[in-house]
Amino acid sequence: MELLERIGQEAKEAEPFLRILSEEKKNEVLTMAAENLVKHRERILAANEKDMARGREKGMKAGLLDRLLLTPERIEGMAEGLRQIAALPDPIGRVMGEHRPPNGLHIRQVRVPLGVIGIIYEARPNVTADAFGLCFKTGNAVVLRGGSDALYSNQAIVEVLRETLHACECPAAAISLLSDTSRETAAAFMKLNQYIDVLIPRGSASLIAAVVNNSTIPVIETGSGNCHIYVDEEADLAMAAEIVFNAKTQRIGVCNACESLIVHEKVKDAFLPMLAERLAEKQVELRGDERAREAVPMKEAQEADWGTEYLDYILSIKVVDSISEAVSHINRYNTGHSEAIITENKAHAEQFLREVDAAAVYVNASTRFTDGFEFGFGAEIGISTQKLHARGPMGLEALTSYKYEIRGTGQVRG
Amino acid sequence: MELLERIGQEAKEAEPFLRILSEEKKNEVLTMAAENLVKHRERILAANEKDMARGREKGMKAGLLDRLLLTPERIEGMAEGLRQIAALPDPIGRVMGEHRPPNGLHIRQVRVPLGVIGIIYEARPNVTADAFGLCFKTGNAVVLRGGSDALYSNQAIVEVLRETLHACECPAAAISLLSDTSRETAAAFMKLNQYIDVLIPRGSASLIAAVVNNSTIPVIETGSGNCHIYVDEEADLAMAAEIVFNAKTQRIGVCNACESLIVHEKVKDAFLPMLAERLAEKQVELRGDERAREAVPMKEAQEADWGTEYLDYILSIKVVDSISEAVSHINRYNTGHSEAIITENKAHAEQFLREVDAAAVYVNASTRFTDGFEFGFGAEIGISTQKLHARGPMGLEALTSYKYEIRGTGQVRG
Repeated sequence: MELLERIGQEAKEAEPFLRILSEEKKNEVLTMAAENLVKHRERILAANEKDMARGREKGMKAGLLDRLLLTPERIEGMAEGLRQIAALPDPIGRVMGEHRPPNGLHIRQVRVPLGVIGIIYEARPNVTADAFGLCFKTGNAVVLRGGSDALYSNQAIVEVLRETLHACECPAAAISLLSDTSRETAAAFMKLNQYIDVLIPRGSASLIAAVVNNSTIPVIETGSGNCHIYVDEEADLAMAAEIVFNAKTQRIGVCNACESLIVHEKVKDAFLPMLAERLAEKQVELRGDERAREAVPMKEAQEADWGTEYLDYILSIKVVDSISEAVSHINRYNTGHSEAIITENKAHAEQFLREVDAAAVYVNASTRFTDGFEFGFGAEIGISTQKLHARGPMGLEALTSYKYEIRGTGQVRG
Repeated sequence: MELLERIGQEAKEAEPFLRILSEEKKNEVLTMAAENLVKHRERILAANEKDMARGREKGMKAGLLDRLLLTPERIEGMAEGLRQIAALPDPIGRVMGEHRPPNGLHIRQVRVPLGVIGIIYEARPNVTADAFGLCFKTGNAVVLRGGSDALYSNQAIVEVLRETLHACECPAAAISLLSDTSRETAAAFMKLNQYIDVLIPRGSASLIAAVVNNSTIPVIETGSGNCHIYVDEEADLAMAAEIVFNAKTQRIGVCNACESLIVHEKVKDAFLPMLAERLAEKQVELRGDERAREAVPMKEAQEADWGTEYLDYILSIKVVDSISEAVSHINRYNTGHSEAIITENKAHAEQFLREVDAAAVYVNASTRFTDGFEFGFGAEIGISTQKLHARGPMGLEALTSYKYEIRGTGQVRG
């Protein structure tokens, strides 16, 4: 616990230094960090092998083991990520607005770092380098609390990054890793308001809920996506089948995958059999309401299905009588992530865009596009499902705040 | 408690309606609300008299009684506030950015309301109408939890506003007031994540701390201001005395008042006697470190003085050897509100602007200007001292979020 306090304090002490680093210097560090990750890959792979061995011993599932595994290619991927971040424009110092009210003051709104960012995440060690890259480029210090499963890997990566910082004469405390992965320390970390400005949880819904419920530090909630696609009465049904197939099956374990289908009554008989055939290629299990089951035989959906993010080859299906009913259903059960309508009717498209409450609302496209790279941000620290501060894919700007610089000539308030 | 749940639910149900209200309709409601407050002022004044009588009975201090008091003029002021909000441009629906990445999607970032805003505040009943105006103009529902001292007044104001909404065929649940002002209900309110998107506390430092520590809803922290003025070695000393006098004494109970003065060693002997004489006009008590007391006799400052927001005719004074020492002291003890340097040296001014970590950083002006009206926002819901979402004076934009509207032509992810 004393160690936690010390880590927070050191990060806070690094903050004033990082806040005023030039773009050139930050890019130099990021580029050298990329080089060093590749150069020291044997050390990182050896640490990762210790995590893998422990994971296999514990009987970790194949999917989780794969997420934990590092390879020379994956380390090269981490390095490439840092190089890409170096190539992005630096938002810090940008003038966002400028005006001179009647009092004669010259007021400028300028982008600044958030300060110290805490990140709590689970088993993927590549997040460690990513998070450092994004936070460092935006002049923030970062304190990481990774999962115990990836501890050796994370320690090795952080060591290489801290050595790089030291070699570049920057404070090593720009990145810290909590080596104590106990729940008690995590709980104390969430109350370190004195040193941490923002906490970003990345991982399972239960991890995120634990952070939201226990943190006294401001949190950016990321992640869970119970995403719907609504096939309108005036949809191009072939396009609809392609999009649902893509959004459901292209990658199942991700937050922007489609979990629930809503179909207009008028097209259900033409559409559902065609879709069922397409989804059978991937053995997708369908769970429908009564009217859906009239069109195609499938399991019966329970109330719980409407609110479930399966992250699996399962799709719930509901039939509605109108677009308004579709919108109400979505606004009741969605998690504020990504929602789509398939329609050729412009008025319906506009109604859906306006009325659905989510970070990303699509017309005639797959929900799978909700992603920092696809959105052209060049990088992503996560996808926010809250409305405060940042919504949807978060790029560099989401890691910044602003301040007002006010230049006067002796003004006092009357 | 069931009532609390029902209020949250009704506000959430009003949200989809409010989200798509036209600017014209919103302005019509605000204008009629202003009229009705004036028209029904006798009812509001009678309710206020009940609060005042109870306050006098309880032996409430004169200052607090004055904050609680409503008069015909103060009701006219509330009405005028609503008219001014009606005259401001509506940020909702504004396109913040637009681009077409290589995947051919048309991505638009559009301003939307936050949803349901909770506000916890203390004795000033004018906040009730203000908060409604700002939230309604931005398409948000608002749930208010005012202090028990102003309960009758708040109820009367909210009644008039709800009658107006009803007459305009808008959901009355656009504004609700918790009539149960117990601590238990306040604690439950802070955990109503299902219905409330953001919580804004307005009031004393202890109220704000209680909300930050107990809320699971995202909070925008407002308020407390331990503001410093640094008089540089190259300051215009007459200007410095004017500005310190204004920032310390023009209004003492406000968050942007100056609480602490930092003076460069080289000018302390010329400046402090002159300032002490000026501040004596208002009987300001000075508390200084050893070197300050060499220049002018005054009380000895204790460690606690550096971190205290007096909100009183008291000023702490520290002498430093360099601008860097001043910046470090400020970054250690300030609350992220407003900080000023008085200097004729441009390099010092720029260093101070860059290195001081606060919402508003001033050169040669009084800290008292940190205010939504002075900044030209036309209105203010509070002054944020956190870095997430909004920093400094919060106008209408601080009550909005955004969403991405994405128009495709059948795109799927490869």
